[in-house]
Amino acid sequence: MSWNTFGRAFRFTTWGESHGPALGVVVDGCPPGLMLDEAAIQPFLDARRPGQSKFTTQRQEADQVRILSGVFEGRTTGTPISLMIENTDQRSKDYSEIAKAYRPGHADYAYDAKYGVRDYRGGGRSSARETAARVAAGAIARLAIPEVEVLAYVSEIGGDAIDHANFDAAEIANNPFFCPDAEAAKRWEALVDDARKAGSSLGAVVECVAKGVPAGWGAPVYAKLDSDLAAAMMTINATKGVEIGDGFAAARLSGEENADEMRSGEGAGPEFLANHSGGVAGGISTGQPVVCRVAFKPTSSILTPRKSVTSDGEETEVRTKGRHDPCVGIRGAPVVEAMMALVLADHKLLHRAQCG
Amino acid sequence: MSWNTFGRAFRFTTWGESHGPALGVVVDGCPPGLMLDEAAIQPFLDARRPGQSKFTTQRQEADQVRILSGVFEGRTTGTPISLMIENTDQRSKDYSEIAKAYRPGHADYAYDAKYGVRDYRGGGRSSARETAARVAAGAIARLAIPEVEVLAYVSEIGGDAIDHANFDAAEIANNPFFCPDAEAAKRWEALVDDARKAGSSLGAVVECVAKGVPAGWGAPVYAKLDSDLAAAMMTINATKGVEIGDGFAAARLSGEENADEMRSGEGAGPEFLANHSGGVAGGISTGQPVVCRVAFKPTSSILTPRKSVTSDGEETEVRTKGRHDPCVGIRGAPVVEAMMALVLADHKLLHRAQCG
Amino acid sequence: MSWNTFGRAFRFTTWGESHGPALGVVVDGCPPGLMLDEAAIQPFLDARRPGQSKFTTQRQEADQVRILSGVFEGRTTGTPISLMIENTDQRSKDYSEIAKAYRPGHADYAYDAKYGVRDYRGGGRSSARETAARVAAGAIARLAIPEVEVLAYVSEIGGDAIDHANFDAAEIANNPFFCPDAEAAKRWEALVDDARKAGSSLGAVVECVAKGVPAGWGAPVYAKLDSDLAAAMMTINATKGVEIGDGFAAARLSGEENADEMRSGEGAGPEFLANHSGGVAGGISTGQPVVCRVAFKPTSSILTPRKSVTSDGEETEVRTKGRHDPCVGIRGAPVVEAMMALVLADHKLLHRAQCG
Amino acid sequence: MSWNTFGRAFRFTTWGESHGPALGVVVDGCPPGLMLDEAAIQPFLDARRPGQSKFTTQRQEADQVRILSGVFEGRTTGTPISLMIENTDQRSKDYSEIAKAYRPGHADYAYDAKYGVRDYRGGGRSSARETAARVAAGAIARLAIPEVEVLAYVSEIGGDAIDHANFDAAEIANNPFFCPDAEAAKRWEALVDDARKAGSSLGAVVECVAKGVPAGWGAPVYAKLDSDLAAAMMTINATKGVEIGDGFAAARLSGEENADEMRSGEGAGPEFLANHSGGVAGGISTGQPVVCRVAFKPTSSILTPRKSVTSDGEETEVRTKGRHDPCVGIRGAPVVEAMMALVLADHKLLHRAQCG
Repeated sequence: MSWNTFGRAFRFTTWGESHGPALGVVVDGCPPGLMLDEAAIQPFLDARRPGQSKFTTQRQEADQVRILSGVFEGRTTGTPISLMIENTDQRSKDYSEIAKAYRPGHADYAYDAKYGVRDYRGGGRSSARETAARVAAGAIARLAIPEVEVLAYVSEIGGDAIDHANFDAAEIANNPFFCPDAEAAKRWEALVDDARKAGSSLGAVVECVAKGVPAGWGAPVYAKLDSDLAAAMMTINATKGVEIGDGFAAARLSGEENADEMRSGEGAGPEFLANHSGGVAGGISTGQPVVCRVAFKPTSSILTPRKSVTSDGEETEVRTKGRHDPCVGIRGAPVVEAMMALVLADHKLLHRAQCG
Repeated sequence: MSWNTFGRAFRFTTWGESHGPALGVVVDGCPPGLMLDEAAIQPFLDARRPGQSKFTTQRQEADQVRILSGVFEGRTTGTPISLMIENTDQRSKDYSEIAKAYRPGHADYAYDAKYGVRDYRGGGRSSARETAARVAAGAIARLAIPEVEVLAYVSEIGGDAIDHANFDAAEIANNPFFCPDAEAAKRWEALVDDARKAGSSLGAVVECVAKGVPAGWGAPVYAKLDSDLAAAMMTINATKGVEIGDGFAAARLSGEENADEMRSGEGAGPEFLANHSGGVAGGISTGQPVVCRVAFKPTSSILTPRKSVTSDGEETEVRTKGRHDPCVGIRGAPVVEAMMALVLADHKLLHRAQCG
Repeated sequence: MSWNTFGRAFRFTTWGESHGPALGVVVDGCPPGLMLDEAAIQPFLDARRPGQSKFTTQRQEADQVRILSGVFEGRTTGTPISLMIENTDQRSKDYSEIAKAYRPGHADYAYDAKYGVRDYRGGGRSSARETAARVAAGAIARLAIPEVEVLAYVSEIGGDAIDHANFDAAEIANNPFFCPDAEAAKRWEALVDDARKAGSSLGAVVECVAKGVPAGWGAPVYAKLDSDLAAAMMTINATKGVEIGDGFAAARLSGEENADEMRSGEGAGPEFLANHSGGVAGGISTGQPVVCRVAFKPTSSILTPRKSVTSDGEETEVRTKGRHDPCVGIRGAPVVEAMMALVLADHKLLHRAQCG
Repeated sequence: MSWNTFGRAFRFTTWGESHGPALGVVVDGCPPGLMLDEAAIQPFLDARRPGQSKFTTQRQEADQVRILSGVFEGRTTGTPISLMIENTDQRSKDYSEIAKAYRPGHADYAYDAKYGVRDYRGGGRSSARETAARVAAGAIARLAIPEVEVLAYVSEIGGDAIDHANFDAAEIANNPFFCPDAEAAKRWEALVDDARKAGSSLGAVVECVAKGVPAGWGAPVYAKLDSDLAAAMMTINATKGVEIGDGFAAARLSGEENADEMRSGEGAGPEFLANHSGGVAGGISTGQPVVCRVAFKPTSSILTPRKSVTSDGEETEVRTKGRHDPCVGIRGAPVVEAMMALVLADHKLLHRAQCG
């Protein structure tokens, strides 16, 4: 897990910038013999794809994935799987203005301070376009954990949360917000549209639940399943917080309330009477659903002018005119889902390395 | 970062169980030439040490650290630094009851499901005693980042938060709660004492601020400073959530509110007008204070009986009678502080590896 | 360093099979600000390129490299550099025979035993075509260590060694054998041609010398410079042995003979009177030239039939009719050179991580 | 595999200096449920222990190992196993002379150049005493690979090789040289004794054979079994060369000679008619014995004076008067054996991670 690689046993390395010719990912350590072709990956990329509604950026990218290695006669061979997605709509435009000004909320200044050089076109490597590569890798991770069902959805936009009583998984694909609550989705249409028209932007919270994870994945102390999930989620652009199970709310419970009591189960392990822990105890899965929640800040690229400086130290104002998501958290849902699958695939392999 | 090792360049590996003869840590990759002896480490262990007030476990541990390697004539040599802390108060008692019953909220069942064997004495490896080893390692990390000042404190217990207007760093050492708000500390005395007497327990939130971190530490995309911080914090026992900067609150801000505007600074970089980002943008430090917040669940070991099962599948009730912290988050403050120092030391080294 | 990634700080990940659409490499951790374009890489690929004389395989590959990321306005940005080389001469032919028979000396059976599936076209991932990706990565590594001059050459073919008294670096590019001894090169023409005509093949030894490596790169105990070099060289196809400095010959010297005596030097460190150690002591560079030697077995693909079995367990005979190098070690020279540069670049970065 | 840690899945980290209070190792990733106590480790340490004949150093070390964690009720728990060995005979003596002079052939100058500080007492971290920690770790690795039998022995001292026709495994424990050829052992007595009396030293070659390794361990391209073995062996003090199978001799064979032909086998895979490859093809085990050979240079510490310089740049002569092995390769045999076991245990775990 360093620089641009994530994972220990099921590992992936992404590359590519927002406005370069292409981006991609190399997946290494994938089990052999899995059925894999582009069609198994494309639907996940399509879900994340921009330009599909007025609530996401109008950048038009086909996001067609191409498998360049690691698959033979329709099956993974155990050797590295190289995936490439060409950038097709990296509009050539005049960057002279943005080239010098540091956009507030963006990584522009931090990159310059670190590297002394940066690709200012669309944020370069710091662009959320990189997440397409993860989503592609995540599609492969899913194949490695057929016993697990992973589902992510947006649970809150601009402070307006879904009502879990209205939860309907089937609803998620029915609206442009990955929202499982039809009523909330309706409210969000106005909310996001208003923000967009006002040249503003909104934050969001994405929830992710993985069902079918057997007890025993994860490891003490620095390979904890929840620690790896937190790391994974915090690598996604615009994320500022992660919760496992009850998260910060757990800090407000009493010990009695928080205890996940058990009774005799019908299956291999005990039956839990609650899941405050979010399916992880001591860094190891308990067999309950693994639950995590991720906070996305509002999109930093807004039309409203903000004070800033240039790389020469001149004061200036920045308005980001380009095509941007009014709520970057929306398209975060497929990315959170992919990261959950990737972490779980990694831990499945790690578990059988040590425990057979 | 795997199993019991954390870090990429400044790495540490911990070992030891709650009731074994000792616990320890091997710190590898530490720069040579740093002045180091036991006296530079001991104060941090003393701050974390149990048994110092009625608000923490009554287990009495001297927590005397011993340096076994890597230091010569008072200076680090660049070779691995081995630290050992002997366990002195691992009371011999009858574990026959607990040996089979899975304590709710604990990792007992998860460990058994994973390994098929577990050291049930005090939770074995899953005990928070392991954090003594991190605190010792953290003391060395501080020496490697003399330009940085790291401070952690408890900002909330049982839902009762400090008032940041009352913040006084000097107050932190004046009460048994690492609380920077004297009034809150007073309220917490009653709060925690009540929980303790009721056989219950409380959760807490710990905040940590690192000042003096220069712009440029961290790296895209999977070695982000904030991702590593999230991972680090989520490896601490009983943690369920991590926030960087505004965290989940950022998801409720507008883009204009959340933007950290800049103006011409007097130093090397721009001056920021706000720090919603918590000192990290695109995974790289901005030169502002690095801010993180960690949620601790209430201590799982409580006197109040909870339903559970045994490893044989028999239903039972568990009351944890031993010596336990009524609010494990309190002693989490020195551990959070240590982890912040450890992550920053690692990123300082990583930064100069790539960028000279 | 796992699976298809090599290096700790300067890391690269290769992908691709002999008969897939392309192969490539992602270089991660490269310092920013280095001047880089395809023209800086291509000459090294051209040197390794097949089909340039009758002494190497007649496969015709342009081996044109394309930079897909990590470079902006002619400079490295510090983000991952993705390089791709398309396969253009992966002849479509009838593989039905070879698809089942395990070629002796090749990895066919081992791959099948491991993965239960394999890409039999040209050896798939086990083909030496993968080394093109390393050579491309090596060209970037050289840019990161401008203070070092790396040179590899063939010192022995089929047991016929060069005379070091005839050593002329300028000669290396003058013959198809990377041979620094003009007379040996002449003898090898006949030697290799005879083997080729006889449907046989020959082994070789490649030597590599790196001048300009400062004292202090490397690290005890498991990141030793010589250990990493040994690992690097043994990842090259067909290698069976590695020596540092005097290597096995050192095992036949007395302690007096082997001691590299020192006297007062003019530069920073002492002047050494000998270099039996090959520039490494205790895993750390001494400032003398780093010297290593690599043994390549004879090409396993030969026209002479050899006994084998099929994946069904049937006995058979295998003659490898395709286009093959009569002495695979010849084209090993640019690969050894690349690996030396890659290991040194990695250790330069590791050294400054720890020691500033 | 960085700094003082080796291995990917079965990992160990060593610490300690020649003249510090103790040395040790933390083994991480070990499978749970293995029967382990000190008695399972001690015999391997006893075999490596110094002071047992006049052919090894007269330093007297009990080398008593103590298990500090990771074992409960006689079984490994899957958590880190910490082993400690106290140094008991680190004679206090006057180091003022050696403190400044760089001993030729030793790492003294290299350490100083790297770290700017070094523990000059007995070489500090660069001392071969560190290998005691590996031997202890190797004893645990053996438990994780009960299907494999690993055997190392000295095959050559001072250029005088054993006759493989006289090979008798039972003989290895019958002489102070780990020599499987009784006649060679007799010759070596005189050879080594002469060198010792002359204040000189000798090099050696150690061979190691692992039987029972199933086909399929290892992985392309940078986690090759032979690459990891080469790395492992070259981390041992005083090693200068590694060969797998025929090694450098393979470079002198023809393709026909070198091919390991196969016929229909009785077991799972084919039966090989030769083992030039040393049990590894394409980086993956073939099911044949894994064979490797390691060259040890002559001990650098000799009584005969050698020219050198001090850290102040003054010219001087160095005679190493202490207690030293006249042939350090002899005690290398148990260390080579341990490293083979450690690499194989790691690859067993890695294989089942990916391939189930």
